[in-house]
Amino acid sequence: MHSINELQDLIKKAFNPALFTHEPAELYDPITYTLNLGGKRIRPLLVLLGCDLFGGNIEKAMPAAIAIELFHNFTLLHDDIMDCAPLRRGQETVYKKWNTNIAILSGDTMFALAYEYLSQCNPQVLPSALSEFTRTARLVCEGQQYDMNFEKQKVVSINDYLEMIRLKTAVLIGCSLKLGSILAKAPDQETEKIYSFGENIGMAFQLQDDLLDVFGDEQKFGKEIGRDIVSGKKTFLLLKAFEIASQKERTELGKCFSEQFISEKEKISRVKTVYQLLNIKEITLREIEKYYSMAQEFLNDIQVEKSSKKVLDSFANELLKRDF
Amino acid sequence: MHSINELQDLIKKAFNPALFTHEPAELYDPITYTLNLGGKRIRPLLVLLGCDLFGGNIEKAMPAAIAIELFHNFTLLHDDIMDCAPLRRGQETVYKKWNTNIAILSGDTMFALAYEYLSQCNPQVLPSALSEFTRTARLVCEGQQYDMNFEKQKVVSINDYLEMIRLKTAVLIGCSLKLGSILAKAPDQETEKIYSFGENIGMAFQLQDDLLDVFGDEQKFGKEIGRDIVSGKKTFLLLKAFEIASQKERTELGKCFSEQFISEKEKISRVKTVYQLLNIKEITLREIEKYYSMAQEFLNDIQVEKSSKKVLDSFANELLKRDF
Repeated sequence: MHSINELQDLIKKAFNPALFTHEPAELYDPITYTLNLGGKRIRPLLVLLGCDLFGGNIEKAMPAAIAIELFHNFTLLHDDIMDCAPLRRGQETVYKKWNTNIAILSGDTMFALAYEYLSQCNPQVLPSALSEFTRTARLVCEGQQYDMNFEKQKVVSINDYLEMIRLKTAVLIGCSLKLGSILAKAPDQETEKIYSFGENIGMAFQLQDDLLDVFGDEQKFGKEIGRDIVSGKKTFLLLKAFEIASQKERTELGKCFSEQFISEKEKISRVKTVYQLLNIKEITLREIEKYYSMAQEFLNDIQVEKSSKKVLDSFANELLKRDF
Repeated sequence: MHSINELQDLIKKAFNPALFTHEPAELYDPITYTLNLGGKRIRPLLVLLGCDLFGGNIEKAMPAAIAIELFHNFTLLHDDIMDCAPLRRGQETVYKKWNTNIAILSGDTMFALAYEYLSQCNPQVLPSALSEFTRTARLVCEGQQYDMNFEKQKVVSINDYLEMIRLKTAVLIGCSLKLGSILAKAPDQETEKIYSFGENIGMAFQLQDDLLDVFGDEQKFGKEIGRDIVSGKKTFLLLKAFEIASQKERTELGKCFSEQFISEKEKISRVKTVYQLLNIKEITLREIEKYYSMAQEFLNDIQVEKSSKKVLDSFANELLKRDF
């Protein structure tokens, strides 16, 4: 197994945003801009890790790794329009910097570019790589739609919420690893296990994101704290709080989201107080732990040398040990 | 060779919009709605014709035919947002009937669905089918971007315009036929010829669309006449008119597009008068004929029995003999 650092270096070398400089500039400039915003390149790393775990050729997995990152950035570009998000990684979003039409079309182009890279896969495994990638693309769209639906829906169950984050976030983590394993020609039952490992890590990862939004350290989290509370987003924390709250706490939560003249700061502080009373942080941490344990079971079950799995396990661990 | 009618029946049976009924309804309803608006299904027919010409299996080409139609409808869905088009085939466009976010996301989903169908191709030819399809998808996006750019650009050359319609319209016609020929395992030089046949027919087709917008019969054309003139769209007709106009006619054209209190009807009539003075109809018809002749040369050159090519030629002829 290569180390995480080695793989990250390879990705950095291969995935140069300048590759996408092309005419017409109005179409391709937003693409290089988006890719230059950075990001941790977690998904392409997972493609390479999935490939490496089964002894595949890392270099040959690079086009699929780039395809996954292009797809991920395409979804961000379109999501930012739909969510009216002014900023992405501290910079203006494409639809703000240019306009909605340009954001739609350069997003579409990135989606096509993703397939251009994917089509460079070994022809022998291309059919399964293509159908895995495409199935996932559709699920991610479904997840985004449920996310938008939930904004307007009065009642959202915790199960519905978990299914939404599975579609919107977790399946792409699973797909990245599985794609790598497919390229390494791993047997089907093994590619399924690494998919499930990734999906469960993805669930844990998203729940942790919800948690950090409330209890994170602003400096380390890299985003403003409390945004989900301010926007009234139905996260795991809020849905769980409503589920287990007493009448009194439920009334207080209801007030936080319905009172008109409450400042953002006060709203965050009052919701956080209810969360603390209800032990929401601990409950969410337990839920994260549950998904992490399930992920580990799948990883343990994979039929490769234990030492090879260590890199993957410690990367997942790293991913989930973000500071509070 | 199958007849056009036989192939159209097969497409009708295989391509049932109800196939795309799925959850969440907010995502899939706009897809079935779009596909139910109708359309002539020209592109899937071309896939089957391209396959049939080289003795391929029509049934096995159907998923690629459906992929092309899904892709085409995806581009219409997103184009309608960008063009602020209220109607498509006489019905409300998706972004009008639902909203922009739904139109973006259901479009994205259709793009993914197109690849889901494409991935059902014979694995042996999948790599070339996939790269042909994907290359075309990106070119179509580039064409749409140039089209949007031209709206704001003061000067557009006729060559730039022809390149734009090549990207936006003609390459997909060429790709449809080529995809069919790839599935039939035709030799590379033959797939290139049928592509060039299609591309040239596509150019003729789009120029004819420009012509019908001005000189067509509203009933037969199925669209309101004069829309391009009203919106000031830089079509072949307008660009050619500006190119060959005398100072007097150029001034008159300029006035038609700059005067504030001119009615739509008057604008159409005055521009048409200039076109008539300049023989723009005849010049455009000659240009259409030029592309049609080039298409025929490529078709003649294809190494299959003459009788097989007849279906294709008469279909192209039919396509271009829309009434004036």
